[in-house]
Amino acid sequence: MNRIGIYGSLGRMGQAIVAAMPALDAVHAGGVDAGEDPGPLAGQCDVLVDFSAPAALDAHLAAAIAAGTPIVIGTTGLSPHHHDAIDEAAERIAVLQTGNTSVGVGLLMALVRDAARKLGQEWDIEIVEMHHRDKVDAPSGTALMLGEAAAAGRETTIAETGVQGRAGLVGARARGTIGFSSLRGGTVVGDHNVVFAGNGERIEIGHYAQDRAIFAAGAVRAALWLAGRAPGRYRMDQVLGL
Amino acid sequence: MNRIGIYGSLGRMGQAIVAAMPALDAVHAGGVDAGEDPGPLAGQCDVLVDFSAPAALDAHLAAAIAAGTPIVIGTTGLSPHHHDAIDEAAERIAVLQTGNTSVGVGLLMALVRDAARKLGQEWDIEIVEMHHRDKVDAPSGTALMLGEAAAAGRETTIAETGVQGRAGLVGARARGTIGFSSLRGGTVVGDHNVVFAGNGERIEIGHYAQDRAIFAAGAVRAALWLAGRAPGRYRMDQVLGL
Amino acid sequence: MNRIGIYGSLGRMGQAIVAAMPALDAVHAGGVDAGEDPGPLAGQCDVLVDFSAPAALDAHLAAAIAAGTPIVIGTTGLSPHHHDAIDEAAERIAVLQTGNTSVGVGLLMALVRDAARKLGQEWDIEIVEMHHRDKVDAPSGTALMLGEAAAAGRETTIAETGVQGRAGLVGARARGTIGFSSLRGGTVVGDHNVVFAGNGERIEIGHYAQDRAIFAAGAVRAALWLAGRAPGRYRMDQVLGL
Amino acid sequence: MNRIGIYGSLGRMGQAIVAAMPALDAVHAGGVDAGEDPGPLAGQCDVLVDFSAPAALDAHLAAAIAAGTPIVIGTTGLSPHHHDAIDEAAERIAVLQTGNTSVGVGLLMALVRDAARKLGQEWDIEIVEMHHRDKVDAPSGTALMLGEAAAAGRETTIAETGVQGRAGLVGARARGTIGFSSLRGGTVVGDHNVVFAGNGERIEIGHYAQDRAIFAAGAVRAALWLAGRAPGRYRMDQVLGL
Repeated sequence: MNRIGIYGSLGRMGQAIVAAMPALDAVHAGGVDAGEDPGPLAGQCDVLVDFSAPAALDAHLAAAIAAGTPIVIGTTGLSPHHHDAIDEAAERIAVLQTGNTSVGVGLLMALVRDAARKLGQEWDIEIVEMHHRDKVDAPSGTALMLGEAAAAGRETTIAETGVQGRAGLVGARARGTIGFSSLRGGTVVGDHNVVFAGNGERIEIGHYAQDRAIFAAGAVRAALWLAGRAPGRYRMDQVLGL
Repeated sequence: MNRIGIYGSLGRMGQAIVAAMPALDAVHAGGVDAGEDPGPLAGQCDVLVDFSAPAALDAHLAAAIAAGTPIVIGTTGLSPHHHDAIDEAAERIAVLQTGNTSVGVGLLMALVRDAARKLGQEWDIEIVEMHHRDKVDAPSGTALMLGEAAAAGRETTIAETGVQGRAGLVGARARGTIGFSSLRGGTVVGDHNVVFAGNGERIEIGHYAQDRAIFAAGAVRAALWLAGRAPGRYRMDQVLGL
Repeated sequence: MNRIGIYGSLGRMGQAIVAAMPALDAVHAGGVDAGEDPGPLAGQCDVLVDFSAPAALDAHLAAAIAAGTPIVIGTTGLSPHHHDAIDEAAERIAVLQTGNTSVGVGLLMALVRDAARKLGQEWDIEIVEMHHRDKVDAPSGTALMLGEAAAAGRETTIAETGVQGRAGLVGARARGTIGFSSLRGGTVVGDHNVVFAGNGERIEIGHYAQDRAIFAAGAVRAALWLAGRAPGRYRMDQVLGL
Repeated sequence: MNRIGIYGSLGRMGQAIVAAMPALDAVHAGGVDAGEDPGPLAGQCDVLVDFSAPAALDAHLAAAIAAGTPIVIGTTGLSPHHHDAIDEAAERIAVLQTGNTSVGVGLLMALVRDAARKLGQEWDIEIVEMHHRDKVDAPSGTALMLGEAAAAGRETTIAETGVQGRAGLVGARARGTIGFSSLRGGTVVGDHNVVFAGNGERIEIGHYAQDRAIFAAGAVRAALWLAGRAPGRYRMDQVLGL
């Protein structure tokens, strides 16, 4: 149960995943990239990992379902449509979708939800992240995940409480909101810090990625954990035992 | 049940506690300072708060026991003898002893224990704190408490794993140790940061105190919570509901 | 030459300035607030300090000019019109206008300009600040001052290179831009950090204000320095000897 | 003038330097390692770079002098004897010795010296660094260099003012001292932060290395700059034009 097939094998993450396999006793069962038929690979491996593009996700899910092969989805930029498709697929195969496969961010999610729940709305929450100069979207997918974890701890959502792009005469901070700030520059792999600002004191919970290899190792770890599982939608914190 | 008596009422914390009472609906029942008899006050209040000196603790506990009055102990620099005396007192009255009464540090203790347990020994733990230039001891009592929380998460103790004063040719870091670093300078009220350093990633959990009033408010909150409790030794996380 | 008159004496900064005077051997010559005639005070002191409101600035400058009294202007939110008026006044009296009177920010300005000049455009510059939940504008005036210092080091301006409110699909970072991020929460007095992000390394230059008293002390120090000076527009770095 | 010979070519830094050459238009003229004769290589290149071991330094300097070839020395752990030998060699060839070849740390040295000189002894200086778990000495050579830069700004030295290994009942901070703290853990390449703590405010100047390649590129840059120079002892800040 350790043969892993990769959708998007030639991308930066795809290559890093192949490189991370030997140390984790995983076997590279092959790769599929843009324009290629995803079907055969799905039948030749124990589990699939997808770091391709949103547009290809439907075909990849169909191939996985047809072969009955579990699939880890790390592709980012998914729309609600994609999440619906993932939910449907999860009725027939094991699926794990996540915006960040590192152990550290997995733990951070749990810590942030816990802190948000215990501190209550008296403490203002701000999330700040920094990534390299070539990142095109803001906030990062991981920052949004952390924001959802904080919001969940307060039994709300980012859709209801998120504030982005604060600039100009914005007025005093509204109680219960969760702010996002995005720094871009240099070659920063990914820094995330969640600030809980109370009266006269502050708590900060942060994650600092030094090397992209941690994400590849996490993806392989998730794949090995998912292989052989019953149908359902799983989460990274289950892989990590958090 | 809201009349609070203070042992060490003229000290910096004693005065801050008196100032914090009105906002929390507590009533100042009186104070006792060095050279004064602690007995009468113990009989005239619902709960005592002690921010005096270790040398006075035995007499203060005796007065509290004689009057059957619960007591919050925030005095620092306690020896094992004092902790034994507190345990004995806890058989007859409610006692809560803590090195830090802020809400934030209370939560930090829980987060740090949780993170240490989940991350395991593959992640190195370092605790760094900064306080004002007049602080005479290092590490701070709060840093040691955080260290014990981290050690407890790994089912060990600081006595077994703590490393202080790293300087010179110290050799490679021993697996499983917990390091402490102490910065001193300026008028810093109290910064604490717990670093979990893994392979290629880092998690940091920190607390930054801006104003000593948070400790006074926490002490009052602890006293109000303790008043009327059955005998026993209580902890700050119970006050905070963490 | 140490009698200081205050325009805006009942505001938060005005009161803090009065409190800061004794320790710096300054004498409080009196205060003027909204609706009062600024003329008499200008003739009864050696130097004026203005922490009132932009709308009152013209009248305050006229009073200072009429009496020939130097004036420190700490009022924020000034428009180009106000700066023109300050330049005109500076032909007849000594004027010092600044968005931040702390020693630390004064030095930071110099360090940031120096670093920006030496590092060149290969290093991306991001400025992040955090203030309390009641601050209504973003970025802070001090962040903008630091941005101008960085821009000046590269012989450009924030008008040409500043980027605020990064959110959404913003695309890759444009070379030579200077980004601003604003966090709001709790009771934070004022944190500012300037990040220079290069390839594989990062430099950060930050200032962390613990107590508003530093701004009041800096304003008094500026006033004492300005008293008796010849007409002209002076800067905070001259006061500080930076 | 771009043929570089390497003493210690098989070490981690030696290999990284070879890898960094092409992008900087340098040519690898060959390497010498433990047990090999350093003489021939010195005659076949325009400049030497030494990242070997202190014990080999005398022989490497002799070879460089005999061939009249400039030499960059990045080997750390040098004793006063080695510095004397370097000074002697500098009378006959161009020599540049440094504990850190990154652009960022080079600039940090200048900023720290400048800040220490301007702020004066009212501001307490603390230097904190973090490195990976296998580093055997503390503080890091770079931390000591930064400390010397700060001390020089105050016209003193670390020998006179440095404080390491703060632990226990150390008493209040002595005015004018410079403290060092060393964190060890994970795979951290090298973080350094210099804290200037004043009354009510703090300045921090930090450098964060993400990738060892920055040190290799800096060594190549130093070598290209040194090739063809007249005899003398040069410094990294001259290479960087800081």
